[in-house]
Amino acid sequence: MSTQTLDIQSLVTDIAREARQASLVLANVSTEQKNRAILRLAELIEENIDSLREENAKDLEAAKESGLSFALSKRLELTDRRVADMVEGARQVAALPDPTGEVMENYQHPQGFVIEKVRVPIGVIGIIYESRPNVTVDCAILCLKSGNASILRGGKEAFHTNTALAKFVTQALEETGLPNKASQFIPTKDRAALNTLLKLDQYIQCIIPRGGEGLIRFVAENSTIPVIKHFDGICTVYVDQYADAEMAETIVVNAKCQYPAVCNAAENFLIHTSVAETQLPKISQALVDNGVELRADAKAKSTLDANGVACIDATEEDWGTEYLDLIISIRVVDSLEEAVAFINTYGSAHSDAIVTSSKEQAEHFLNGVDAATVYWNVSTRFTDGFEFGLGAEIGISTDKLHARGPMGLRELCSYKFQISGDGQIKE
Amino acid sequence: MSTQTLDIQSLVTDIAREARQASLVLANVSTEQKNRAILRLAELIEENIDSLREENAKDLEAAKESGLSFALSKRLELTDRRVADMVEGARQVAALPDPTGEVMENYQHPQGFVIEKVRVPIGVIGIIYESRPNVTVDCAILCLKSGNASILRGGKEAFHTNTALAKFVTQALEETGLPNKASQFIPTKDRAALNTLLKLDQYIQCIIPRGGEGLIRFVAENSTIPVIKHFDGICTVYVDQYADAEMAETIVVNAKCQYPAVCNAAENFLIHTSVAETQLPKISQALVDNGVELRADAKAKSTLDANGVACIDATEEDWGTEYLDLIISIRVVDSLEEAVAFINTYGSAHSDAIVTSSKEQAEHFLNGVDAATVYWNVSTRFTDGFEFGLGAEIGISTDKLHARGPMGLRELCSYKFQISGDGQIKE
Repeated sequence: MSTQTLDIQSLVTDIAREARQASLVLANVSTEQKNRAILRLAELIEENIDSLREENAKDLEAAKESGLSFALSKRLELTDRRVADMVEGARQVAALPDPTGEVMENYQHPQGFVIEKVRVPIGVIGIIYESRPNVTVDCAILCLKSGNASILRGGKEAFHTNTALAKFVTQALEETGLPNKASQFIPTKDRAALNTLLKLDQYIQCIIPRGGEGLIRFVAENSTIPVIKHFDGICTVYVDQYADAEMAETIVVNAKCQYPAVCNAAENFLIHTSVAETQLPKISQALVDNGVELRADAKAKSTLDANGVACIDATEEDWGTEYLDLIISIRVVDSLEEAVAFINTYGSAHSDAIVTSSKEQAEHFLNGVDAATVYWNVSTRFTDGFEFGLGAEIGISTDKLHARGPMGLRELCSYKFQISGDGQIKE
Repeated sequence: MSTQTLDIQSLVTDIAREARQASLVLANVSTEQKNRAILRLAELIEENIDSLREENAKDLEAAKESGLSFALSKRLELTDRRVADMVEGARQVAALPDPTGEVMENYQHPQGFVIEKVRVPIGVIGIIYESRPNVTVDCAILCLKSGNASILRGGKEAFHTNTALAKFVTQALEETGLPNKASQFIPTKDRAALNTLLKLDQYIQCIIPRGGEGLIRFVAENSTIPVIKHFDGICTVYVDQYADAEMAETIVVNAKCQYPAVCNAAENFLIHTSVAETQLPKISQALVDNGVELRADAKAKSTLDANGVACIDATEEDWGTEYLDLIISIRVVDSLEEAVAFINTYGSAHSDAIVTSSKEQAEHFLNGVDAATVYWNVSTRFTDGFEFGLGAEIGISTDKLHARGPMGLRELCSYKFQISGDGQIKE
């Protein structure tokens, strides 16, 4: 192993050890003190926009030189709007209730002592993310508000911007009397840092990876620390035989077209065979009018061809593809059961919808589809922490343990049992 | 890769795929039907005690031949008492409320639709365990009641007994109309089966390892499926400067001696320096009278020596050792803060207690110690799902994600968001 690798291992281990110490302090500071640090960070960002821009320009220049795609470069850019959103987001999180300390349940033991289940921070959370630099600030703040120490490992493309933002996080912690190791950015782009981080289970309690599937799979396969995965979404809208035609069109178009690049946009559109003739051409034409490319199975294609709606053949691969683009796969199904089975086979268990006026069909769908969020007569586009009333969101879990679907401040917490008695012993 | 290994990979993959299919059915069967299967299993075990005994005798014979330790052989034995406990346990679980289907929270979106957070099964749970054959039945039943399919991988020592028990599980499922793949035992002792199982994240949602530290660490390091770890307990009792002397003695003796072989028994005993002279010799003598070996730090040893209480020197290793035996480490601390820091350094975050009459000291301890269960004036021996009112227990999680401390039926569940509206789209 090279000296450099050993140095990085030692650096990252120190960061994690110090984060663990800071987390024990942070777990017991007041809500007011945490809010002061968050609000001070918002001020520091506002006060230092010019220097942040300079650092961001370095990242953008490097991206240009390395031939980074236009889309990725766009993500990297710290626009006025993004800075304003970061600052506004910080103020909103400061205004949210503190999730820690709440007694979630309590129970009196027959021997007379009381068992309280109290919400507490998880401890140290490692966030692994890609190019968007605003994630650095958003995650540091959400972890801080929920009493967690955070270790941030950002993408190499945003290194200069992230380093500048992390400096303000440290400054805000110091100026408000909190441990300055409560939120730390990993100050190296070396891959060895990530490999080391993922094995430090004695100090870190949770890893949240955010980004492309490759990154998330790498983290899940190499971490000895529990991971809450945030895979993307392969979402389906199923138009049932009892669907209202107008509502079906509105929902399918909205789920696909309102913002196609996000994880809760629809990628598959299923329709019951008994309404395929009457509803499929009109809904599909509306999609085409919105610029969507249609990829249809044989049945759907013959109906669309007969009605002069342009489409191409769907392949097996299409059913499990997250396009994040103006493309949709269409399939005609013979029954609700077939629709449910299709979603449970090809979907990513993120968000799926049925359009139907039958309560019975809807219940069968809502119970049968194994996804984090299931919709009846509502667009899939609502899967989001803010829309669900969580106030803030660190991401959308595609796991089934700990947190499923949108994760807010409470989902960044664990709990402990606090037990008070007067000398009870086990007989 | 050998043909045999390939065969095993294919066998285990089939088991997992079928478990996933069964889990989708099981998630929507009635409580009554699940209870019928559980009660039928209890009957089958009662009716077939003789044949179970014969299979168990084969395992015991093999254990003897292979020179398995007496303690491990004891764990393997299906005594009358253990069979009765399994049967009684099954009937108790059948009588517990079904955790699934409960609406945990609900929220009306400003656009008028309703978001319900509903408790649902996790899906497919893999249980990896060692020699006790009763775990096969206990886990199959807890998973079934909570609507989860289970894949059971038992220790090789109990292979014949487990195979016989698993046959009755399958029979009970079939006779009561449930999918017979809803609970499956891995029918090979080959290590390749475990290695394959831990990578099948497309079918299995959760792995629960139960057993020694080596097994749990292996599972955590090799699984791409989320793991809920059940490490053992290094528990501490701290006798504060404001402790009632009699209560301190009762609690320390109970926490150490009532059942030393379990994870919630105390391994470390801390005492505040200001009461060391007055309370340490008496408490320690009571421990000695109960057959406990004392391992003391320098300060404690000098006090004990001066009072004629037999003890030996503790080493650094002692503070982090789970004896599971009549041995305790003793240390004199200068402050509550030192006690808390000691526990957060050497403890395993399982169960820790303070004995004090000061509410302020107690609160500092309960908040400061980062453990699943923290006690004030109560013995650590109560950490247990039954004692906490959960009705049943699949184990005690030492993780901080998903479930912490005792895990019952509700902790074997995830949730989903069910959303019902009348055509709402995202603007």
